[in-house]
Amino acid sequence: MHPVIIQNVTPELNGGRYPVKREVGDALVVEADIVKEGHDIMAAVLKYRAAGEDAWRETPMRFLENDRWRGEFPLERMGRYRYTIEAWPDAFESWRHDLEKRLDAEQAVTLELTEGRELVALAAERAEGAERRQLQQALARFDEMSEDADRVDLLLAPTLRRLMARNPDRRLASVYEKELEAIVDRVAARYAAWYEMFPRSQGTVEGRSATFKDCERRLPEVKAMGFDVVYLVPIHPIGKINRKGPNNAPVAGPGDPGSPYAIGSDEGGHKAVHPELGTLEDFRNFVARCQEMDMEVALDFAIQCAPDHPYVQAHPDWFKWRPDGSIKYAENPPKKYQDIVPVQFYGPHQDELWREWRDVVLFWVGQGVKIFRVDNPHTKPIPFWEWLIREVQEAHPDVVFLSEAFTRPKLLQTLAKAGFSQSYTYFTWRNFKQELTDYLTELTQSECKEYLRPNFFPNTPDILPAYLQTGGRPAFMIRLVLAATLSSVYGIYNGFELCEAAALPGKEEYLDSEKFEYKVWDWDREGHIKDWITAVNRIRQENPALQELENLRFHPADDDNVLFYGKASLDGDNRIFVAVNLDPFEPHQAVLDFPLEEMGIRPNQTFQVEELLSGRKHLWRGRRHSVDLDPQSNPAEIYRIRGWMHRDYVETCY
Amino acid sequence: MHPVIIQNVTPELNGGRYPVKREVGDALVVEADIVKEGHDIMAAVLKYRAAGEDAWRETPMRFLENDRWRGEFPLERMGRYRYTIEAWPDAFESWRHDLEKRLDAEQAVTLELTEGRELVALAAERAEGAERRQLQQALARFDEMSEDADRVDLLLAPTLRRLMARNPDRRLASVYEKELEAIVDRVAARYAAWYEMFPRSQGTVEGRSATFKDCERRLPEVKAMGFDVVYLVPIHPIGKINRKGPNNAPVAGPGDPGSPYAIGSDEGGHKAVHPELGTLEDFRNFVARCQEMDMEVALDFAIQCAPDHPYVQAHPDWFKWRPDGSIKYAENPPKKYQDIVPVQFYGPHQDELWREWRDVVLFWVGQGVKIFRVDNPHTKPIPFWEWLIREVQEAHPDVVFLSEAFTRPKLLQTLAKAGFSQSYTYFTWRNFKQELTDYLTELTQSECKEYLRPNFFPNTPDILPAYLQTGGRPAFMIRLVLAATLSSVYGIYNGFELCEAAALPGKEEYLDSEKFEYKVWDWDREGHIKDWITAVNRIRQENPALQELENLRFHPADDDNVLFYGKASLDGDNRIFVAVNLDPFEPHQAVLDFPLEEMGIRPNQTFQVEELLSGRKHLWRGRRHSVDLDPQSNPAEIYRIRGWMHRDYVETCY
Repeated sequence: MHPVIIQNVTPELNGGRYPVKREVGDALVVEADIVKEGHDIMAAVLKYRAAGEDAWRETPMRFLENDRWRGEFPLERMGRYRYTIEAWPDAFESWRHDLEKRLDAEQAVTLELTEGRELVALAAERAEGAERRQLQQALARFDEMSEDADRVDLLLAPTLRRLMARNPDRRLASVYEKELEAIVDRVAARYAAWYEMFPRSQGTVEGRSATFKDCERRLPEVKAMGFDVVYLVPIHPIGKINRKGPNNAPVAGPGDPGSPYAIGSDEGGHKAVHPELGTLEDFRNFVARCQEMDMEVALDFAIQCAPDHPYVQAHPDWFKWRPDGSIKYAENPPKKYQDIVPVQFYGPHQDELWREWRDVVLFWVGQGVKIFRVDNPHTKPIPFWEWLIREVQEAHPDVVFLSEAFTRPKLLQTLAKAGFSQSYTYFTWRNFKQELTDYLTELTQSECKEYLRPNFFPNTPDILPAYLQTGGRPAFMIRLVLAATLSSVYGIYNGFELCEAAALPGKEEYLDSEKFEYKVWDWDREGHIKDWITAVNRIRQENPALQELENLRFHPADDDNVLFYGKASLDGDNRIFVAVNLDPFEPHQAVLDFPLEEMGIRPNQTFQVEELLSGRKHLWRGRRHSVDLDPQSNPAEIYRIRGWMHRDYVETCY
Repeated sequence: MHPVIIQNVTPELNGGRYPVKREVGDALVVEADIVKEGHDIMAAVLKYRAAGEDAWRETPMRFLENDRWRGEFPLERMGRYRYTIEAWPDAFESWRHDLEKRLDAEQAVTLELTEGRELVALAAERAEGAERRQLQQALARFDEMSEDADRVDLLLAPTLRRLMARNPDRRLASVYEKELEAIVDRVAARYAAWYEMFPRSQGTVEGRSATFKDCERRLPEVKAMGFDVVYLVPIHPIGKINRKGPNNAPVAGPGDPGSPYAIGSDEGGHKAVHPELGTLEDFRNFVARCQEMDMEVALDFAIQCAPDHPYVQAHPDWFKWRPDGSIKYAENPPKKYQDIVPVQFYGPHQDELWREWRDVVLFWVGQGVKIFRVDNPHTKPIPFWEWLIREVQEAHPDVVFLSEAFTRPKLLQTLAKAGFSQSYTYFTWRNFKQELTDYLTELTQSECKEYLRPNFFPNTPDILPAYLQTGGRPAFMIRLVLAATLSSVYGIYNGFELCEAAALPGKEEYLDSEKFEYKVWDWDREGHIKDWITAVNRIRQENPALQELENLRFHPADDDNVLFYGKASLDGDNRIFVAVNLDPFEPHQAVLDFPLEEMGIRPNQTFQVEELLSGRKHLWRGRRHSVDLDPQSNPAEIYRIRGWMHRDYVETCY
């Protein structure tokens, strides 16, 4: 008999099927409807335990209104937490409540006091040690008393109330039928700036692969721009069979390097490094250099093999063979990708196959890599990812997985629910005011915020969006500021800082992409926006408001080309507003409407505004302020708002 | 390995914890997100079975968009249905799809045809009987062919496609992890008009109880007003100990009848009838008279006992006893209800107690009663109701339970989820435009619509709302129209038709209530609104749109005193609009905005309007029409909209 109904628990995803995500240092706030017949005073606790803890810890929940309760517990370490709720009618509090109403009505309460004594006696039986003795002493004093008034004072005393609360009668308690789960990641899962690097293009000699040493030489510049994560596209040997040539040509020339996503050759597979880049030792040195500079390395994890990958020989059952005895290439009919053979995840070999891919991840974890950007996870089974991520994070809760699933919305979301720490998103194609507002509201205010951390990339090796192709340097500045201030985690793919915009005609792909060629870049090429990137990343680092995701709110600006939004830090001390001209071609003016009342600023109160990109300071008053955003000079402005200390002269004047 | 993820199923309440409600003749429409990695063509079936059926039946689901699927199945009988979903990648459809793309690109498909043949061969192994033979014949024909073009035609033939769909490979199928439940009630659970009757007040002799025979004499009038359900407040013997006097006086006079909610005396308990009303035989006759007139009887089910109820003697452990040996009375401190002792639902006697109350219900079911209005269910355990309703409905799926829970919103809702067929609501206190719009939108458009059927009562023996106390006859007319057209099921408590409005000063209670006195009413008293009630009930009967709940939609009227809304029948043939002046004191004019495009009426098209209360007909054109609502004459208007047959003269003129 469980008369207490606990329901509508938040956060809870798909009836508890999937974990929510938080970061270390957060408190997990849990709410529930707790309903029981009648008018009993209720008590409820939030029960929680970190992975590896056998016993529940408990923290009281408090009543909000309308049968809604709330509690929270601190997330002190990485890994998975479980939580649930227990609630029961609090007999002593209900008795107290009724007694006080009777006393107010000046009714006789002799019988009620005897009933109260019985509740104390039962609590004394449940209690142990000092608390039992204290309760027994209270009973003894009650029995010595002859006046109701004395007994009232005894039974309503605050000390007894606390003792009773610590020894409740839970015989009628209900425990919520589900144990819910939270993944607690490190803060870098939420807040980081990524720089994506093609290792072989980081050198200075035309027609030859750069090495990890060349990559190391670029680190000071990447660090100076303010990035935290250096993400390398696959570093493994590249298949030689059916290797692709420049611009995805079906046949490679003799000197062509091939796509690094066609992994594996006689030089090794997913646990090897491409000899042109260096040795595993060189790679470990690169990782160490990053760590010394307080950056970390992210690796690409692409589950696909070149036809000459060692797995094909060693494990033919992992692949699909055609009626003529040939291996099945990747394809999306009528397109064929003959430099890649996809793995077959289903079949009797499943256990062996899954464990091998897990071990590939663990191998690189062993080399000091704690971030993996997963290529095309939406073409592999969702339960596989759910299993792999759990397996890896149980041993290494600091490992972060980014899902590169530019796919159907619900598949993208389901991969995030299955455990991916971060997700690529449709931000890459959201350019204008309404679509940005709608999409960011979904990401930050809907249930998505519980499990999907959007990592905003304005470009990738596969995607050079039309906006960047046509909008020139201002387009790159605009997209950088949007990515870096709308989301707390974002990244750029090298060349973005150079405003590289040469595209294959009619496509959103790079012309002469380094995916298929050796490239050498002039990293100081005219027109670069490294200063802009540096300034924006510095502003992110200096302002905790920009290190959070869910705090994004849009505010009115009276021009459709101007997007205006704000973020406040959790403590409310840091308040940032951003106005962006979304039109890379024309200046636009807009009146911005600042939500003063939310900031506790009165309409007639002066406040201090600092534009963080220019350093200009203002004293403003009132909600509405005009801004003029010229894509050539100031496509965006970032304001930090502070109260203005106003003090009347308080000393007497002589 | 279940690569298919089925989630976000609707309808589903609290993760499948509670059943949804529907009525016989409905189709249950079920939707789900069905997600799998990659780009396979999927297949899905909705699986369902009625109570007592061992095997699932299956009906195909169809793809909508964005990974959303929909299916439906007919609810052919009363009782509980279960449903779930199964989905799998359709290997043959995926193969077909790819083949067609290859053919469009004029690629060679020889190998693909061999792969397709293999799929057919596997299906032949799964198939049985004639279908197996047909598949085997197709294989034989394939093997005889030498041209790819012939094999293409064979494998893409519609007949083979159907055969393959009927013999799918479900090895990679997922079944949704929950079996969901639907309660299917008879239509009267959704659509009925109730007349609540105090049996002892239906007579003609002052100071004496009326009898069931007197009640029978009132039935023609109740029927003539258009009611379907005659609901009687408790008909059982009334306690003699601590009986209440007029206007809830703590002590009854010698001739006072007491409250019928203080049930039980030496004359019997919940399975007896009050001797003043007649015998059980008389009651059965009353039930039969109602049935002859195509009405049915609803009884009050009030789980509370007078101190002299037979249960108190027979089952002292069902009640709570105080330290001085006295029985505990019902109370809500500091108020005391000394004519009632509440039952204790918890304890070792629980099984016996619960079964006894179930048997009380079954006893009255045995007397022909199939509707129970449950008094104060919110003071009894929710799991008790969940159990009792399921027990009764398993044997008698035509039994309807109305929950009288004027309590906290979430407790009211949870009782509905637990199984109550209908619920009293806060309609009783929602009088004005915004609050009516908000509340009815919640009831008809939120998740509430899945489980909570609101039975709208503008008055009850306990509640004479301030609006009725002060608004005079127009207030009664207004509230009647609102109750009868906003919800599909509603009721009035006798005296409403007489506009009885005498209240205890400062309270929302009747003065000299028949709850505590013998009363005689003049049912033709001046100022009655029986004609108005009759007209509105007739309009409900003639218009299927008003027999549904979820079809309610509000439309603009440019005056805050005028509420304007519409309902359409499921087939769209019957379209009703209602405009109500919510102000009982003053006439108000408003321009009503009819949603012509939803009705398929063009802006310049003439349509036919019949005002159903007056019978006036109009030909209108355009969205906006003005109405003048005078509370003294036409506080409301009800429009039926029909297209206007416009036909150009089509014959040749000579």
